[in-house]
Amino acid sequence: MDHAFSALWKHLRQKAPIIHHITNIVTAHASANVAIAAGASPIMAHALEEVADVAHLSDALVLNIGTLTPALIEAMVETGEAANRKGIPVLLDPVGAGATPLRNQACDLLLGRVRFCAIRGNASEIEFLLTHRSHGRGVDAGAHPGPIAGAAPQLARRHACTVIATGAVDTLTDGVRTFTCANGHALMARVTGTGCMASTVIAAFLALREDPLQSALAGLAGFEIAAERAAGKSPGPGTFQARLLDEVFGLPDEGWTDGLRLKEEIR
Amino acid sequence: MDHAFSALWKHLRQKAPIIHHITNIVTAHASANVAIAAGASPIMAHALEEVADVAHLSDALVLNIGTLTPALIEAMVETGEAANRKGIPVLLDPVGAGATPLRNQACDLLLGRVRFCAIRGNASEIEFLLTHRSHGRGVDAGAHPGPIAGAAPQLARRHACTVIATGAVDTLTDGVRTFTCANGHALMARVTGTGCMASTVIAAFLALREDPLQSALAGLAGFEIAAERAAGKSPGPGTFQARLLDEVFGLPDEGWTDGLRLKEEIR
Amino acid sequence: MDHAFSALWKHLRQKAPIIHHITNIVTAHASANVAIAAGASPIMAHALEEVADVAHLSDALVLNIGTLTPALIEAMVETGEAANRKGIPVLLDPVGAGATPLRNQACDLLLGRVRFCAIRGNASEIEFLLTHRSHGRGVDAGAHPGPIAGAAPQLARRHACTVIATGAVDTLTDGVRTFTCANGHALMARVTGTGCMASTVIAAFLALREDPLQSALAGLAGFEIAAERAAGKSPGPGTFQARLLDEVFGLPDEGWTDGLRLKEEIR
Repeated sequence: MDHAFSALWKHLRQKAPIIHHITNIVTAHASANVAIAAGASPIMAHALEEVADVAHLSDALVLNIGTLTPALIEAMVETGEAANRKGIPVLLDPVGAGATPLRNQACDLLLGRVRFCAIRGNASEIEFLLTHRSHGRGVDAGAHPGPIAGAAPQLARRHACTVIATGAVDTLTDGVRTFTCANGHALMARVTGTGCMASTVIAAFLALREDPLQSALAGLAGFEIAAERAAGKSPGPGTFQARLLDEVFGLPDEGWTDGLRLKEEIR
Repeated sequence: MDHAFSALWKHLRQKAPIIHHITNIVTAHASANVAIAAGASPIMAHALEEVADVAHLSDALVLNIGTLTPALIEAMVETGEAANRKGIPVLLDPVGAGATPLRNQACDLLLGRVRFCAIRGNASEIEFLLTHRSHGRGVDAGAHPGPIAGAAPQLARRHACTVIATGAVDTLTDGVRTFTCANGHALMARVTGTGCMASTVIAAFLALREDPLQSALAGLAGFEIAAERAAGKSPGPGTFQARLLDEVFGLPDEGWTDGLRLKEEIR
Repeated sequence: MDHAFSALWKHLRQKAPIIHHITNIVTAHASANVAIAAGASPIMAHALEEVADVAHLSDALVLNIGTLTPALIEAMVETGEAANRKGIPVLLDPVGAGATPLRNQACDLLLGRVRFCAIRGNASEIEFLLTHRSHGRGVDAGAHPGPIAGAAPQLARRHACTVIATGAVDTLTDGVRTFTCANGHALMARVTGTGCMASTVIAAFLALREDPLQSALAGLAGFEIAAERAAGKSPGPGTFQARLLDEVFGLPDEGWTDGLRLKEEIR
C-alpha cells in the first residue's frame, strides 16, 4: 500500500490538477486551501454563465450542496453534464442530504442527470441517498453510529461509482471491494468543513485518472494522517484548522503510511 | 452567578442544540466554528425553498444582515415566521444598521414581522434601531463610545426582548434588569466576525429555553472569558482567531467565572 | 523610501479609511481581516439595492471578480460609477481574467464604464487585460514566468492608472515609472487569498489620496515584509495565514524597510 499511495501523492504534486468547485459559502475557503496544500489548484465558480467554460479547463469537479439554492442546482447540473462530456471525474458532496426536500430533490436530480465518479458524505447522508430515510440532525452532526451495514457498497453499485462514508471509521467502496479506515482524529468533528476538505482532497486524486477506489483511499488516508499529526500539535479546534493545512502541505510523498488503520472487508 | 452559568454551559453541551443561521459570506465560517466549539451544532441555509424546513429541525435561529440582498430579506422573514410558529428563539444581528436604507428597511421589516427573543449588535446599531439616527462608520467600527444611556433597555421594552449591545463594555438587558460586562479583549475588535460569533453563542444559549437574559449573560460572559484567555496566548489578531476557538472549546463548565467583571445597573 | 513609506503607514492608521469590497465568497473573510490588521475598516456589500449607498460612506472601493455572477457585475458597474462620481479610488482585482468569457466580458465592461485608480492581478491576468490572450491555468496558478515585458506599463498607460502585477517578483507602475519588488515569500502562493489581500491593502493606501504609485508601493512592500516575517514563524501554509495577520497588524510604522528589494526599472 505504501508504495501505491506514495506514487499517487507524488503524481498529484507533479500534475497539480485544477479542481473546479461549486460549493457553499461556509467552507469554500477551507476547500480552496486544502486543495493547494495537497498539491492541486482550486477554482471556485458557480455562475451558470461560466460553469461549463470552467469545467472545460478543469481536471475534476466537486459539487457540494452545503448552502444550496435553485440557481446553484441549475449550475451544478449544467457543469456536471459538461464535465461528463469532457470525461473528467465528478464528486458529489451531499451536505445535509435528508434534512430538507430541496436538498433531497437536488440529490435526486443530480444523481439522475450527472454520472458521478464518487460520492463523499457522512454516514447519515450516504444512508439517506440509499434509503431515502433520514436519521441525521444538522449538517455537522457527528454522533451517528455509522451507516447501516452495506449502505455504502449498495449505493456504489447503484450509481456505478466509488462511495466514501466518512466518520470515526470511514468506509470506502466501489461496490466490489470495501475498505474501512480508522484514521483521523476527533477534532475533525469539532471544526466545520473537514468533510468538505476530504471531498476536495479525494477529487484531486480522482483527477489523476487512476483507479478511483485506490485514489480515494490514498487521498483520504493521507488527509487523515495529516489530521492526526495536526491534532497532536493543537490545543483545540482553532489551532487544529491551521495545523491541518500545515500537515497536508508537509505530508511527504512517502513514509507516512506506517500508522494506517486500513482494512479490507471480507464478505 | 458561577453556579447558574456553569449549569447553563453544561446544559448546552448536553443538549447540543441546532442553530440555524441565515448569515453573511464573510463570517459564516467563523459562526459555524464557534457554534461547534461552544457545544452546539450549526446549520447554514438561506434558500427560500428550504429555510422553513430547516427552521423546523432547529432549536434556534440567527438572522444576520451582514451581506444582505432582497432575496435574503425574504428568506429571513419566511424563516423568522416559521421559527415563531414553532416557538424557537430568534436572534437578530443587525450588522450595519444605520449604514444604508436597505439595511434599515430590512430591520424595520424584520422587527415588524418576526418576534425576536434577542437582538445583539454594537452600540451604534442598537442606538440606530431605537432612534433611527446613525452615528456608525463602517460595520467593524469599534470606537463608538457606547449607546446613549438607556438605549438598550428602551429597545428591549419596545420589542419585548433581550438586547445585547457589545463593545468595550457590553450592556445586556431585558428592559427590566440591565447588566454591564467589562470582559473581553481589544483584539476582538481587530478581527472580523467576533460580533457575529457572539450572536451565535448567545443564540445557542437561548436554545436552552431558560431565562433569556440569564442565558445571554452566561453565553457572552463565557465567550469573553475565552477571548481574554486566547488574547493572552496570541501575538496578534490572526493567531487570536484560532486561539479563540480553542478557548471556547476548552472552556470548562465550571470555574471560569472568577475574572468576571459583571455588574447589575441599579436605576 | 523608508521615510515616505513610514509616513503612509502612519497616515493609514490615523485615518482608518473605510474600504468597500464587492468580492468573492472564498476570500471575503481574509480581505476583511487584512483590512482591519493594516489599519483600515472593511465593509462588504454587494446588493444592487445598497452598493451606491455604501460607496457614499466609503473611502475606497475594491471590485474583485473571484466568484462572479451577472448580478455582481451589475452591482460592480453601479458601485464603480458611484465611486467615480464621489471621487474615491477604485481598484480592480481581475481574478481569473482570461479563464472564461464571463470574466473577460466583465473586465471589458468594467474597464469601459469605471475609471480605475489601480488594477492588481497576477502576471497572466495583467497580460490578458492587455492582450486578450490567456496563458493562465486556474486562478491560483503561480508558476507563470511573469507578464510579457512591458505589459504592466502599457496597461497602466491605456487606462491611465497604476498597475500592480504580483508574483515572485512584483511589478508596480503608473505607466511612467516602473518598480519591481522582490519581497514576499513562496508560502503566499500556497494559500488562497493572498492576492485578494494585497489588493485590499493597496486599496487602503489609495484611500489616503496620496500619489497612487507611491501608495501602492508602500502598501504592497509592507504587506510582503509582513509575509516574510510570518513565513519565518510558520511550519506551513495554515499557520502562515494566521501569522500573516499578526505581522500586518504588528508592522511598525517605521523601521521595517531595511529588507526591501525594490528597484526602479530604467528604460
